[in-house]
Amino acid sequence: MSELRKDPVSKRWVIFSEERGNRPNQYDKENEEEHNSTEDISKCPFCEGKEKKSGDEILAYEKIHNREPNSPGWWVRVLENKFPALTSKGATLKKGVGIYDKMSGNGRHEIIVETPKHYDNLPDLGENEIEKVIYAYRDRYTDIAKDNNIKYILIFKNFGRDAGASLEHSHSQLIATPVIPKKVETELHGAKDYYRFRDRCVFCDIITQELADNERIIEENELFISFVYYAGRFPYEIWILPKQHSAKFELINKKEVKDLASILKNTLQRVKKLLGNPHYNFVIHTLPIKENDTFYFHWHIEIMPKLTKVAGFEWGTGFYINPVLPEVGAKYLRECKID
Amino acid sequence: MSELRKDPVSKRWVIFSEERGNRPNQYDKENEEEHNSTEDISKCPFCEGKEKKSGDEILAYEKIHNREPNSPGWWVRVLENKFPALTSKGATLKKGVGIYDKMSGNGRHEIIVETPKHYDNLPDLGENEIEKVIYAYRDRYTDIAKDNNIKYILIFKNFGRDAGASLEHSHSQLIATPVIPKKVETELHGAKDYYRFRDRCVFCDIITQELADNERIIEENELFISFVYYAGRFPYEIWILPKQHSAKFELINKKEVKDLASILKNTLQRVKKLLGNPHYNFVIHTLPIKENDTFYFHWHIEIMPKLTKVAGFEWGTGFYINPVLPEVGAKYLRECKID
Repeated sequence: MSELRKDPVSKRWVIFSEERGNRPNQYDKENEEEHNSTEDISKCPFCEGKEKKSGDEILAYEKIHNREPNSPGWWVRVLENKFPALTSKGATLKKGVGIYDKMSGNGRHEIIVETPKHYDNLPDLGENEIEKVIYAYRDRYTDIAKDNNIKYILIFKNFGRDAGASLEHSHSQLIATPVIPKKVETELHGAKDYYRFRDRCVFCDIITQELADNERIIEENELFISFVYYAGRFPYEIWILPKQHSAKFELINKKEVKDLASILKNTLQRVKKLLGNPHYNFVIHTLPIKENDTFYFHWHIEIMPKLTKVAGFEWGTGFYINPVLPEVGAKYLRECKID
Repeated sequence: MSELRKDPVSKRWVIFSEERGNRPNQYDKENEEEHNSTEDISKCPFCEGKEKKSGDEILAYEKIHNREPNSPGWWVRVLENKFPALTSKGATLKKGVGIYDKMSGNGRHEIIVETPKHYDNLPDLGENEIEKVIYAYRDRYTDIAKDNNIKYILIFKNFGRDAGASLEHSHSQLIATPVIPKKVETELHGAKDYYRFRDRCVFCDIITQELADNERIIEENELFISFVYYAGRFPYEIWILPKQHSAKFELINKKEVKDLASILKNTLQRVKKLLGNPHYNFVIHTLPIKENDTFYFHWHIEIMPKLTKVAGFEWGTGFYINPVLPEVGAKYLRECKID
């Protein structure tokens, strides 16, 4: 079982998860393998027909009526991560060790397999298939949110090795944590500050500004907008927001799911085509489960292509150096022709 | 000239520096080149004999009496970065653009070339040579600190492509910024909080705890200690601290430089040998220039080997997943035989 330790200086929590580790002499070999081999598809546990290899499914949207669990015939499947960073093991135990603080690694770590087909990636799927992925996000969120030990649920995607993915088959992940993560707290505090000062949601103001400036927008439909973020850490960092104020992702409705699937597909297709199928991460930021003050926060997706390396300056300062002006990046993305 | 933009949500600053950028179709090619080629040493601007190619030196420690500037015969040379993230251009100009804030990219970005020899890396140098590198850090720090536009100076090293280095020849960097970086502020606040609560420096308490526990220490000499950090974000993340309380790196004295060179060499040699010469970053965290309350902070070096990829979960939460327990990592490092 993993252990959470708190940095007494910055108050950041770190998850120590030995099951995910290597012996020290394995790093060298792994790096070589990473660059020289493509994955052996016959070993992929996420492919249709390999359901028995992946462990019991937590959820599946079925293509076939009366399908047996863990058998073919599904659109989306949710599994427990085989090497979970956090697991659900009763109540969270907190403990002091000298000047240090730690707690048991209580939480969840799930995999959302987005498609039964090995070579399709998220932007290659049909909009109706992407809608099912979003419904799976929502349904797992709503279910886990009932657990009183859980304070926050992050839904995210790692695409490609440089973005931290270890399997090729298209999937997203969900990690539920027993504390509210520092980066989320920073966003919440910032948004609260802004609300106190201006009596408006900072994200709503960002949308208004983006629509007025009209130089960073990539895609827009009835309910959503996607744009290169004014102060993005990474080149071509993109944010997707619902245009109407909404703090909680899990309250997404049918029409919103439809528009989100569409804007996500088009935006990721542009990224794929313009930047040569880059590795990327995306994360969904939403209000913490138990927070009921919904005026100041606005849920959103942050897409971060991995085109540059994070270096000592970034690690040392939290400052980022971004070599592409958002206005320039957005113009390239807008002008890129997609099908 | 670069531009600084502030994230209205998290209040983080980002440096936009177009000179450092690529056109969108160049990323693909660059990644391939990175993995397939080794550097052409004849083109290295940091080698002895190539001084004219690197631009005018800001500082050099000379081997030869009455040496001409920008000619051979030096131990350490300091240069302006050819693609600076920040440059010194008079006073900092701040401006609002709708709801957003920006300022001119005022600061410094320098390169410390650690050795005239292309294939020697920091831990391969003699202790007396490493001492000269540390003196160069201190001297550049002290000189730049006189500039009233500068609020913070970060000294750091990127070793290897995965750590963000673009040139192979052993070098460190210095970036001076017109604002105090967020990560530094977080450390300062955390340390201040601890001081308010306990009336002691948190770093002094960490040293006491590490000496008592004696399971994470790697190296120790009269004035310094190096250990795998209790709540490190990365596997084998190592901190080096002066054992006596000291908030300002720039006040380092002769005996301290000697002991720091020695512990840095031995620690990096262990990392190199145990982990197969991994790419790594290190950063020096010190009290901001104009801060005079020295009781609560303690300067230190953080060494971060790049063995794992930072993924969506980390970007989305600020939480890190570390697969190696510090006690286990420290044991491996201690047991590793170095010359």
